[in-house]
Amino acid sequence: MITYPTPLLEEAVNEFSRLPGIGRKSALRMVLHLLKQTPEEVNRFGETLMKLRKNITYCKECHNISDKEICSICADTRRDHELVCVVEDIRDVLAIENTSQYKGIYHVLGGIISPMDGMGPSQLNIESLVIKAEEGKIREAIMALSTTMEGDTTVFYIYKKLKPFPITVSTLARGVAVGNDLEYADEITLGRSIVNRVPYENNLAR
Amino acid sequence: MITYPTPLLEEAVNEFSRLPGIGRKSALRMVLHLLKQTPEEVNRFGETLMKLRKNITYCKECHNISDKEICSICADTRRDHELVCVVEDIRDVLAIENTSQYKGIYHVLGGIISPMDGMGPSQLNIESLVIKAEEGKIREAIMALSTTMEGDTTVFYIYKKLKPFPITVSTLARGVAVGNDLEYADEITLGRSIVNRVPYENNLAR
Repeated sequence: MITYPTPLLEEAVNEFSRLPGIGRKSALRMVLHLLKQTPEEVNRFGETLMKLRKNITYCKECHNISDKEICSICADTRRDHELVCVVEDIRDVLAIENTSQYKGIYHVLGGIISPMDGMGPSQLNIESLVIKAEEGKIREAIMALSTTMEGDTTVFYIYKKLKPFPITVSTLARGVAVGNDLEYADEITLGRSIVNRVPYENNLAR
Repeated sequence: MITYPTPLLEEAVNEFSRLPGIGRKSALRMVLHLLKQTPEEVNRFGETLMKLRKNITYCKECHNISDKEICSICADTRRDHELVCVVEDIRDVLAIENTSQYKGIYHVLGGIISPMDGMGPSQLNIESLVIKAEEGKIREAIMALSTTMEGDTTVFYIYKKLKPFPITVSTLARGVAVGNDLEYADEITLGRSIVNRVPYENNLAR
């Protein structure tokens, strides 16, 4: 156990080492970096974090992070509001938005079903999705979750919940990544990409 | 370029990604982690950082980080004040203190000579070390710097500055690490450890 020369330093290292993926050595490196900054810069850092936590809200429609009641995506009338992409968290929204290929709206679950982490369906934003479906507001739900056991479980759970309603439930196309060599693709991905092959014209349309 | 749903989020990601070794993806992960904490926890984080930067000072004697004028190591009268270990920064002090093998005091340079990074001798705490030597306060100076080109340059510079005074300048023993196989040691380390071999009794004394 390292003894720090002052509790001030130790407390700061403790705070940083609570962040995901940060050990005590990296935390100390960050704290020493901050000590080299001006007090104004460090104050701005601290205040930005406090302001963020205080002012951030979640969109009432899609549960995405927002600073308004309805986020800018849900408020956009040019988007297709009957096409809903179901994602785990905001990082997936950012990634899909970044492709500029999607013109529907999102539904952020806030996690995936994972009994190991104590994450059950009731802790996720699934109920509000089912209500939307019930009200006839959804034409197609695209399940854009990770292809892990947890992701697949979550997709299956939501699929069963949405089954009573006249909704198309789809998943992302899985296949060999664009620009990747065939020989380096794993066999499951390659197998799926042969089964789910697409007409050549689909590629031309892009 | 990713467009964030709110500037609050973007500012927080910007702040985190200024930290050493943190890219924008890791920064976003940290920010999302903080959003899951209570506002009180995030406030504590922010305030700890501001308090740290505001209240931290450097020891007048050894330039180590401290919250008092004289740090607890320099204030400790049981330590040998004529034995001075010269290190780059506080991380080295923590590492050496952690061994419980050293009973002298430290002198923190605050960096090493590195023309590439614009770090010259005048920006380091070398002058105060020379003054201490001049005043006859040092019996032995242990150079505990990295064995890089910058480290070796710094050691040589300080060595020349201390030469006029009756001081023993020593360096850390270099050799095969305890518990390491000989065959995996690099040849320079192995060579040095043969040249600087020690009497077997030295090991027994530990």
